[in-house]
Amino acid sequence: MRNFITFEGCDGVGKTYQTRALKEYCQQLGLDVVFTREPGGSDIAEQIRKIILDANNSAMDDMCEAFLYAAARIQHLKDIVKPALSAGKVVFCDRFVHSSYVYQGLGRGLGLDNIVALNDIAVGDYMPEFTVFLDLSPEQAFMRKGGADKTDRLESVDFSFHSKVYQGYKSLIQANPDKFEVIDASGTREQTQALIRQALVRRGVLPC
Amino acid sequence: MRNFITFEGCDGVGKTYQTRALKEYCQQLGLDVVFTREPGGSDIAEQIRKIILDANNSAMDDMCEAFLYAAARIQHLKDIVKPALSAGKVVFCDRFVHSSYVYQGLGRGLGLDNIVALNDIAVGDYMPEFTVFLDLSPEQAFMRKGGADKTDRLESVDFSFHSKVYQGYKSLIQANPDKFEVIDASGTREQTQALIRQALVRRGVLPC
Repeated sequence: MRNFITFEGCDGVGKTYQTRALKEYCQQLGLDVVFTREPGGSDIAEQIRKIILDANNSAMDDMCEAFLYAAARIQHLKDIVKPALSAGKVVFCDRFVHSSYVYQGLGRGLGLDNIVALNDIAVGDYMPEFTVFLDLSPEQAFMRKGGADKTDRLESVDFSFHSKVYQGYKSLIQANPDKFEVIDASGTREQTQALIRQALVRRGVLPC
Repeated sequence: MRNFITFEGCDGVGKTYQTRALKEYCQQLGLDVVFTREPGGSDIAEQIRKIILDANNSAMDDMCEAFLYAAARIQHLKDIVKPALSAGKVVFCDRFVHSSYVYQGLGRGLGLDNIVALNDIAVGDYMPEFTVFLDLSPEQAFMRKGGADKTDRLESVDFSFHSKVYQGYKSLIQANPDKFEVIDASGTREQTQALIRQALVRRGVLPC
């Protein structure tokens, strides 16, 4: 979908900093853009997200989790993304279907085909025009984040999981390189931000 | 899946009464059976169900609802149905995938193919051995129920919806008659219960 751009990368890669810095830059330029992330202020999606992230729900079936992510995604699309795109805005979304592909499909071993199929049903035509991938190995990303947050159930998993996630991203990019802007995120925050802006200029999203 | 039997029918057809009466009969016979319905005492599935049924969530996207039903189904299977079947018990479940097919796929117009596909991913091999369908037109079923319950969002829809649901059940049965026991539910409660027991004897679930 034109003007719909997503950000992906391993935990701790710096997506939050980078998307915030990009948002400030867009505001300085006076661009009419929307920055969001699931559940993104959608009340129903937020209710779903709470169930997923509740540390008391450790007995949750992995496939149940994948369906809940997809459900929250559908509602966030309806409430936030579709209205903004319809109004002619550029929408930047922090994580989207590719996170489900690699975290649920590959990391948790539910099968990429299953997770692609259910997300195809969930998002329909609303696939991103392209995806900005912040490329940093899970070891480096984890160190940058300063360790796991024990209150978040999703953090309580080991490195082999994150390694599968990272390799999964790499495979998706290899299979469809035109749909990704791969950003070297191993430098300073400022260097990474500059690389992101250069990529968005190349794609015609930011002015030269 | 052997020993997994589901009950289906339009709202108000008397499923609750009939399954309760059947449960009492099985207990009198000393049969080791489990009667359940989603979310069926699964804590996580119950949390999901609350979001679906909350009258404040009227802005819920129909496809989001279908994914939430599937998510709750997965968790209920894991927590309740699979352990019982593994223990050699017969499991009777009040509503299952066929309700999603006809209520979401046909009633709400999300497309039967979509709802079948996502439920195939959700339940895997755990399709019922057969389904007891309590056959009563939506008009008769509605009258029997004594009108709509306004606190339940799902009841606040019109008759054309329920008519699509009923016709949807009929089409599913026509396409796969061996997978259904169609029970005439237009008689008295006692007559309907007798017909259900006869069908279960024919299927070898109840003793002669």
